[in-house]
Amino acid sequence: MTPARRRPAAVRAHTGRRAGDSGTRAAILESARQQFSEHGYDAATIRAIAAGAGVDPALVHHFYGTKESLFAAAMQLPFIPSEVITAALAEGARPPGVGIGEHMVSSALAIWESPAVRDAFRGLLRSAVTSEQAAAMLREFITEAILTPLARLADEAGADDATFRASMIGSQMLGLALTRYVLQFGPVATASRPELSAAIGPTLDRYLTGDLRAAGKQP
Amino acid sequence: MTPARRRPAAVRAHTGRRAGDSGTRAAILESARQQFSEHGYDAATIRAIAAGAGVDPALVHHFYGTKESLFAAAMQLPFIPSEVITAALAEGARPPGVGIGEHMVSSALAIWESPAVRDAFRGLLRSAVTSEQAAAMLREFITEAILTPLARLADEAGADDATFRASMIGSQMLGLALTRYVLQFGPVATASRPELSAAIGPTLDRYLTGDLRAAGKQP
Repeated sequence: MTPARRRPAAVRAHTGRRAGDSGTRAAILESARQQFSEHGYDAATIRAIAAGAGVDPALVHHFYGTKESLFAAAMQLPFIPSEVITAALAEGARPPGVGIGEHMVSSALAIWESPAVRDAFRGLLRSAVTSEQAAAMLREFITEAILTPLARLADEAGADDATFRASMIGSQMLGLALTRYVLQFGPVATASRPELSAAIGPTLDRYLTGDLRAAGKQP
Repeated sequence: MTPARRRPAAVRAHTGRRAGDSGTRAAILESARQQFSEHGYDAATIRAIAAGAGVDPALVHHFYGTKESLFAAAMQLPFIPSEVITAALAEGARPPGVGIGEHMVSSALAIWESPAVRDAFRGLLRSAVTSEQAAAMLREFITEAILTPLARLADEAGADDATFRASMIGSQMLGLALTRYVLQFGPVATASRPELSAAIGPTLDRYLTGDLRAAGKQP
C-alpha cells in the first residue's frame, strides 16, 4: 500500500492541498520544531503540531508515526533512538562472549560514525546549552526514548534504582559523545570502536546491575 | 610587598595609565579572550595578549601569574583547575578509606556546587559546541590543566596508556557535569554528592589503573 492510497480523503479536503507534497511535510516539521521547543517534548501534542501546520492530526500520524519519530525527523536525527536501543538490547543481538555494556558502546559508536548523527547531536547540544527550554526538551526526549528502555533493562535484571542506573549510563555515553565528537580529546577521538567498547563496556555493566553503593572499593 | 611596589616603573611609562586600575585589568582580560579564541590555548602567548592590551608582558604576569591563571580569569573560572586537581590528588588529601576515584568525584562536585562555576562551564561548553575554534581552545586547556595531572597520576601508578586513561576520566566527568547541570537528568541532578561519588568513584579508579582491555567481563 502506497502512502498516497492510505491517506484519508478527508485530510486532503481539510488542508486544501496535496497532502503528500513536500510543502506539507515541511510545514509539519516546522510546526513540530516550534511546539517541541516552546512546550518541551512531553507537553507537545500531535494535535497542536497538526493545527500549527494546518493539517489533520491523522496526517501527522500517517507521515511520521509516533511522537518520537516525529521528533527525530524534526531534529534531523537519521534514526529512531528507542528502536535502535531496543534492537541493540534484544535477545540474540549480542555476539557470543560480548558483554552487554560493551555491545551498547559498540552499537552507539557505529551509529555515531555517521556525520548526520554528529551534526544532529551537536545541534541539539548547542540548543540545550543556550536555552533552558531546549535543555528541558532534550532531557525529556532522552528520558523517554533512551533512559526508559535502559531502566527497563536494569529493572528486568533485578537491579534497584533503575532510573538512577539508566541516567548514570547516559552520563557516560553523553560524555563520550562530547569528548569524542565535539571537544575531540586526542585519545578518545582517535581510539577504535573495540578499544572504547572494551574500556567503557564494564562501566556500563556496573551501572546497569553492579553495586553502586560500594564506595571506596576498586572494582 | 604590595602589587603597586612590585610594578616596574617602565610599565607605567609604557602604558601611560595607572597599571593597577581596573581598566587595565579589563583590557588584559579582553585581549586574552580574543587571543585564546583566535589562536587557541596552546598558541596564545602572554606577549601577544600584552601587546593587544597595550601593556608590558611583565604586567600581565604580575597580575595573573601563569597562562593558565590568566585563562581562568578571562573565562571567569573562579578557581585554577590544575591547582584544585593537584590539591585533591595530594598525599594525605583523601580521608581514610576513601578511594581516589571517589575522592575525585566528591571534590569535583564540591567545586561545581558554585553557580559561578556552572555558569563558566556552560559558557565554555556553549562556545565549544558553536565553534570548532572554541572547541579546540577548550580541548587544549582541559588537556593541559586537567588531563595532564591525571595522566601523571596514572603514570606514577604504573599504568600504561596514561593519556587515554586521563581522557576516559574526562569523558565521565564531563558527562556528569553535562547531565547534572545542563541537561539536568532527574536522578543525576538530585543525587547527593556521596551517592554520585560512590557510583562513579570506582569507574574512575578503573580508568586510572584498572584493566581497560578486558572486554566482555563485568567488574
